[in-house]
Amino acid sequence: MATVSRRDFLNKGAKIVAAGSAGLLAACGTEKTGEAPAVHTRKTFRWKMVTTWQPHFPVMGEGADRAAKWIEEMSEGRLKIDVYGGGELVPALQAFDAVTQGVAQMSHGASYYWAGKIPAAQFFSAVPFGMNAQQMNAWLYFGGGLKLWEEIYADFQLIPMPGGNTGVQMGGWFNKEIRSVDDLKGLKMRIPGLGGKVIAKAGGSAILSAGGEIFTNLERGVIDATEWIGPYHDYLMGFHKIAKYYYYPGWHEPGTVLEFAVNKRAFEELPKDLQEIVRTAAYRSNVMMLSEFEAKNNVYLQKLRETGKVALKRFPEEVLNAFRRYSQEVIDELVEGDPLSRKVYESFSKFRKEVGGWAEISEKVYYNLIGGME
Amino acid sequence: MATVSRRDFLNKGAKIVAAGSAGLLAACGTEKTGEAPAVHTRKTFRWKMVTTWQPHFPVMGEGADRAAKWIEEMSEGRLKIDVYGGGELVPALQAFDAVTQGVAQMSHGASYYWAGKIPAAQFFSAVPFGMNAQQMNAWLYFGGGLKLWEEIYADFQLIPMPGGNTGVQMGGWFNKEIRSVDDLKGLKMRIPGLGGKVIAKAGGSAILSAGGEIFTNLERGVIDATEWIGPYHDYLMGFHKIAKYYYYPGWHEPGTVLEFAVNKRAFEELPKDLQEIVRTAAYRSNVMMLSEFEAKNNVYLQKLRETGKVALKRFPEEVLNAFRRYSQEVIDELVEGDPLSRKVYESFSKFRKEVGGWAEISEKVYYNLIGGME
Repeated sequence: MATVSRRDFLNKGAKIVAAGSAGLLAACGTEKTGEAPAVHTRKTFRWKMVTTWQPHFPVMGEGADRAAKWIEEMSEGRLKIDVYGGGELVPALQAFDAVTQGVAQMSHGASYYWAGKIPAAQFFSAVPFGMNAQQMNAWLYFGGGLKLWEEIYADFQLIPMPGGNTGVQMGGWFNKEIRSVDDLKGLKMRIPGLGGKVIAKAGGSAILSAGGEIFTNLERGVIDATEWIGPYHDYLMGFHKIAKYYYYPGWHEPGTVLEFAVNKRAFEELPKDLQEIVRTAAYRSNVMMLSEFEAKNNVYLQKLRETGKVALKRFPEEVLNAFRRYSQEVIDELVEGDPLSRKVYESFSKFRKEVGGWAEISEKVYYNLIGGME
Repeated sequence: MATVSRRDFLNKGAKIVAAGSAGLLAACGTEKTGEAPAVHTRKTFRWKMVTTWQPHFPVMGEGADRAAKWIEEMSEGRLKIDVYGGGELVPALQAFDAVTQGVAQMSHGASYYWAGKIPAAQFFSAVPFGMNAQQMNAWLYFGGGLKLWEEIYADFQLIPMPGGNTGVQMGGWFNKEIRSVDDLKGLKMRIPGLGGKVIAKAGGSAILSAGGEIFTNLERGVIDATEWIGPYHDYLMGFHKIAKYYYYPGWHEPGTVLEFAVNKRAFEELPKDLQEIVRTAAYRSNVMMLSEFEAKNNVYLQKLRETGKVALKRFPEEVLNAFRRYSQEVIDELVEGDPLSRKVYESFSKFRKEVGGWAEISEKVYYNLIGGME
């Protein structure tokens, strides 16, 4: 795009209009060429962003609020976005449809919520024994992942943008110790998605509970265990008051990508500058949410430890091996019945294998090296 | 900020000017209140960005080019930034001074290059046995790190912004095997900064060579070893043609933060929207560069392996332990003589300790769990 300096405006006969009390100047002009001029239609837009989170939910909901604020600031208020929590405009799990239909122009959530509609979408958020945050970003931005995601969402008039990451989650809260695979038999655990299918294969049952009901269900023994996110959110949920065993690692969600999805037509109606502003805000949101999780999970892990009532446990090797075996079965079944899932999984697993080789001599070694340091 | 719709413009008597051949409309107007109007001074800015990299250097230099492009697109060309490689406008290592003095408005580099001027700045890029990329971002954005950095750079009329990360680097190329600490005695290694001081404590000597001279120096035996970055850049440098042993991990640079530094006065002259655009582009650059390193280091590690001539080696435990011990001595000496370094190190090391506790049950466990997966 050509740059138009202030002097160019004057030379080209642009008008200078003295503004009122603020004493600001407003200049506008166009170039004679057919190129987009530096100053053109100052059209304003008002969007709705629906989210899958409770209003102002820590990190994710607050992060969606922040993203809207950045976009408003970068656009001088030309793109103002009203953010809605789940249920405020449409139910949380209708966010995808709402944006497809144009009821809202944008959403924030996670792609595995749409597994019923698009099984392949799960690879763009988290799959058991998948990639972590750093690896997912590398795959999406530089390994072809985002391109596949865009192709798939295009059928729903949506443009996906990575817009956050939880990092490695925790394995969950249990009201009994898990010593072997046998302890999973008959276990009623709140765990959605592919992780839930793994628990079912291990002899347990995967129960779905909305966020607001988990605490009561666990307290009353309707469920024996629940996964949620990590120390920060889990502390706020109060699970440590009613379950003693807190297991790691979160094999089922090793680095869940959060997504913005934008209505394609609404996006295309934006001038190029606002399009780039929306895209860039999504990148900022991506690194900010992961950083906030990483910083706050520390602090709240400490608080959980200080209660003196939480038994932090690593899943036994045997149990993790079973989870891994069942996870592969679950993914094989997913891929077998769905060509689109197969296509995405091929890209995903090829990249995972390559990036795993690099991790073996970089991040993995370094984590093991600094373990136990002051 | 108030939103001004198109109809508001008309109601307030704004002028609509038909543009030439493109048939675009240009509208401009102001509100009557003293608030910043949605459309105000369309002043344009032209900045210079000096970098510490060779022109269009892979990832970092290309990333600086990209950041300038995003800013230009988001601002509709109102902020156009010309990017200069090291030596094109000022020598690479004068980038900091050039921005302080306003010769350029912005720079891209890494804060440890300014250690001679500000020893404490090293904590904002990389220190031996420090934090990795994910942890550094968490400390900077949510652990008080960036605030300290801003305070320190304010004395130099600069605003720092994290703007990239290399991830865990490699330990370097050696023309002989390192079996014990004794093999470091007399070793002439190209390694700058605190890492160089560690090598000196171990009985070697740290040699400084500009990027363009390293290959020849290593080939001719002027140096016995060199560190550089990671598989992608190291492959491009051709080190595998003249050194057999490629050591990991990069204990001296476990997640080097790259920086933008912006001249404070130039930044403050920008309207708020352009300020936010510059900030947001820096975040995007941060996650993009790390992702590009992560994705390409895989690919080039593979290429290095395929040569059949590279012996990938982990530093022996004894050597790593010595590096760790000497690193702590080097940091203790740095901190002892400089209150500012002490202040930053206190924040850095407190956060490192906390985040390390979290890593022990999250990323570290997960890396070990997926190690060896297909």
